[in-house]
Amino acid sequence: MREITLSGGETPLRVYDTSGPHGRDVRQGLPLIRDSWIVRRGGTVDKGSPQASNVRSLPPFLARPAKRATSGVTQLYHARRGDVTEEMEFVALREGFSPEFVRDEVKSGRAIIPANINHPELEPMAIGRNFLVKINANIGNSAVSSSIEEEVEKLRWATLWGADTVMDLSTGPNIHETREWIIRNSPVPIGTVPIYQALEKVDGRPEELTWELYRDTLIEQAEQGVDYFTVHAGVLLRYIPMTARRLTGIVSRGGSIIAKWCLAHHEENFTYTHFREICEIMKAYDVSFSLGDGLRPGSIADANDEAQFAELRTQGELTRIAWDYDVQVMNEGPGHVPLHRIKENMQHQLDWCQEAPFYTLGPLTTDVAPGYDHITSAIGAAMIGWYGTAMLCYVTPKEHLGLPNRDDVKQGVVAYKIAAHAADLAKGHPRAQAWDDALSKARFEFRWDDQFNLALDPQTARSYHDETLPAEGAKVAHFCSMCGPKFCSMELTQQVRDYAAGKGLSSGEALEAGMQEKSAEFRKGRELYVTAEKEEQIIGLPDRSVQEPTG
Amino acid sequence: MREITLSGGETPLRVYDTSGPHGRDVRQGLPLIRDSWIVRRGGTVDKGSPQASNVRSLPPFLARPAKRATSGVTQLYHARRGDVTEEMEFVALREGFSPEFVRDEVKSGRAIIPANINHPELEPMAIGRNFLVKINANIGNSAVSSSIEEEVEKLRWATLWGADTVMDLSTGPNIHETREWIIRNSPVPIGTVPIYQALEKVDGRPEELTWELYRDTLIEQAEQGVDYFTVHAGVLLRYIPMTARRLTGIVSRGGSIIAKWCLAHHEENFTYTHFREICEIMKAYDVSFSLGDGLRPGSIADANDEAQFAELRTQGELTRIAWDYDVQVMNEGPGHVPLHRIKENMQHQLDWCQEAPFYTLGPLTTDVAPGYDHITSAIGAAMIGWYGTAMLCYVTPKEHLGLPNRDDVKQGVVAYKIAAHAADLAKGHPRAQAWDDALSKARFEFRWDDQFNLALDPQTARSYHDETLPAEGAKVAHFCSMCGPKFCSMELTQQVRDYAAGKGLSSGEALEAGMQEKSAEFRKGRELYVTAEKEEQIIGLPDRSVQEPTG
Repeated sequence: MREITLSGGETPLRVYDTSGPHGRDVRQGLPLIRDSWIVRRGGTVDKGSPQASNVRSLPPFLARPAKRATSGVTQLYHARRGDVTEEMEFVALREGFSPEFVRDEVKSGRAIIPANINHPELEPMAIGRNFLVKINANIGNSAVSSSIEEEVEKLRWATLWGADTVMDLSTGPNIHETREWIIRNSPVPIGTVPIYQALEKVDGRPEELTWELYRDTLIEQAEQGVDYFTVHAGVLLRYIPMTARRLTGIVSRGGSIIAKWCLAHHEENFTYTHFREICEIMKAYDVSFSLGDGLRPGSIADANDEAQFAELRTQGELTRIAWDYDVQVMNEGPGHVPLHRIKENMQHQLDWCQEAPFYTLGPLTTDVAPGYDHITSAIGAAMIGWYGTAMLCYVTPKEHLGLPNRDDVKQGVVAYKIAAHAADLAKGHPRAQAWDDALSKARFEFRWDDQFNLALDPQTARSYHDETLPAEGAKVAHFCSMCGPKFCSMELTQQVRDYAAGKGLSSGEALEAGMQEKSAEFRKGRELYVTAEKEEQIIGLPDRSVQEPTG
Repeated sequence: MREITLSGGETPLRVYDTSGPHGRDVRQGLPLIRDSWIVRRGGTVDKGSPQASNVRSLPPFLARPAKRATSGVTQLYHARRGDVTEEMEFVALREGFSPEFVRDEVKSGRAIIPANINHPELEPMAIGRNFLVKINANIGNSAVSSSIEEEVEKLRWATLWGADTVMDLSTGPNIHETREWIIRNSPVPIGTVPIYQALEKVDGRPEELTWELYRDTLIEQAEQGVDYFTVHAGVLLRYIPMTARRLTGIVSRGGSIIAKWCLAHHEENFTYTHFREICEIMKAYDVSFSLGDGLRPGSIADANDEAQFAELRTQGELTRIAWDYDVQVMNEGPGHVPLHRIKENMQHQLDWCQEAPFYTLGPLTTDVAPGYDHITSAIGAAMIGWYGTAMLCYVTPKEHLGLPNRDDVKQGVVAYKIAAHAADLAKGHPRAQAWDDALSKARFEFRWDDQFNLALDPQTARSYHDETLPAEGAKVAHFCSMCGPKFCSMELTQQVRDYAAGKGLSSGEALEAGMQEKSAEFRKGRELYVTAEKEEQIIGLPDRSVQEPTG
């Protein structure tokens, strides 16, 4: 939670915050807030110190042994037993629901709390359609720089702007160590696509992947504390030909790794044939499934086709199996989908996957705007979020073109926070509209600083304002640069209302009566809008023009 | 129309283009393409040279007399008589429909062709829900600079990126001359809010406005060639108290000017009481109505309230009256509306305004993101466009904060072109998806230059690509920076498909058979994906990482 202090006697507003404790030394890691919870609940055993052999620079206090379950430890296990875990209580506080409601949502499979027992630094959060819509940001190491500080800085940057979970898609030789530092410093759940690391271990040759190598990778990452795994177990051999006549074939990297393996061996996807063994691993650490959509459409032309929906049905089958093991599950979804075909995705997912949380990439609602796919996809994301998608994977302006830099990550996160919040408003989340109302009230009352502080991106809002009206006096002026000081529509309404309130009038008729009196005032030529003194305070005052669009 | 040349033997793609003839000298104005059409149809008389007294620097050849109708001249008049005008033919060509279809849409009132008989430079276009969704951009003079070249440059910039109409919201002493130059150089319809200029004439004091002064302003602008007028005739005295308990009152500048006048005089809105006289003026020049929504909501809290819908019902009443005069009409709509309340706006407008084109400002789907309102509103705009809104008024990132600069205008236009095109796809406009398919095909086939040229913003797409892979070799590489050269999902699919095509296989089963053969090839260790030579051509090659979001 972050509390925003307001002026003018307004009650401070508390907003959901994902950025965790600030100012921590990267090499200290975050406080272990979940440690005592996990220990108290029991059912785990220490596994020695597996990191020691892999991580060169780990300080001793961080080289703690990994935990592994000896009995049920998943949030789903506890929910099914009727227990309210501390994680559920934490979620309940953040979201404004009762702990029992949170438990019941987890129990039904409609929500997950991704919380690996080896990620005690986590501030628990829920992904489910009756909670606030969440967003995911992807980070990954770059070719040149890989200092630990830089990797953790990417995480902090994404969560500062509001990423609810972060997927670490790093590759290369230091993949294990990089991930270690990210998890030790992450207040949000960390997701991975383990097949990427498995592929590294066979020098990028998919056909050399084996179940044993993949399994060991899952265990390695589970012991580090990864909270959810993308597993493309729904990409079945018989679905691959369905993509052959697509405009853009297979566009998921994970999906195409599996497809290449299947083709090379002409055998069924090993993550499907070994799915129950994967469940056993996930269960032992409370790693949640993010069932990948390896056959998602990569263009408008391929949306909602046979291949995509065949995989989604299989995701449903796998969801039921995972639940047999008390493993939490969400399902990944598309992709590129035109507006009128979005709802069908949500409906099928709800039906076929028994209301498990849906986690979509956008969807992008047109292919024609490379460079702006944070916008093409925020449109689809807002809509599918409203329809019931629980988490939205962000898309940056660089999608389809290149690697996102720091500003691209911010642009992607902000566009997705907008989409998620627009969906929350539409779904009627009980805490959503208070934020809009607080900001609009500040806007109407010309509390400029409050308006900036309440903005999703206060820095940008303030700097845009100051471009036109830089003077400090403009921050208290009862007008803005759009209409200028002489005439302001908001100010007029305020005058009318103040007058009504002063007279104790409340009904529409009484207000009308009041306005007749006010009308007499106006005719006397009294100028209520802005004083000359105020006008003089303003430097660089522009014409009243341009922005107010249609009058 | 703009034709985009493609490589690889692909058929060039023609896309709708709004930018008109390029490279013209501002002081020459555009060619008078409609002049002979208007003369041929007759029914007009020259009114002398009214500009001469107002415009200081007008070259003689531009000081042509204004035309005024002596009989029916509006597009609606012609449509009702069964005539197909040249304007309708022009629209039919641009949109890919028959001229008769265009005529019938105009006849029914479902579409308008804003085309003042004094704007012969216009390239006619249609606004209606069975046509491509259009977007409007606002421009206006700024305080400091007002050279003619700069004003026309704003127009050219907005139409270059795709503005279908432009509203000139200029103010100040040179308002008439500025507008003259804009119209003489505009290939797109120009809209205005005449009450802004009327207000200038009474030094910004709404209570001093009179019908006569407003009427003269309408005539002045109609003679110049303005194609549509925003008229806030639906803001009735009795609706004003309905706004008193709103969170943000009246936020339309035009609406609040009228409200202030009504309160000051305690009389009914003079644009309502004189509405039939306004229709007579509009009819004489074929100026279209854009019936203003002066009581639109300015915040999520105020969406879809009594005041807003009371005005919309009155807009419907006024629409019917305008049609009695053969005057074309569209209706303006909100504003700030959460996702789940957008459809209701469209439904009421269709019902109450007899399917006249709807023209909305966004709507913004949340109030919390000042600095990003091009995105908060593009989400709502795409949705309402899909539901049937015919034109979307853009919002720039500076909305609520300051005056848009050149880049803000571009950002607003591009975001709205995305929204409009996403809506076109969803509505199934027969020409919409060809563009997406051409771009996705270029993407899949690694025709990078084609992909850039087909992009809504080719410059940005190219520069984003070059940030990561600047080498010219990367433009023909069969991979991109997201997955890197060693493994690329699109390339895999292409291999599978090429193989199938080479064997003349077509059915799913045959493809599967082909894949079994291919599987043998893969097992022989043949690396089909990229040659070492190709890899060496690439400078600054990044890790394969980061962007592909969920595997």
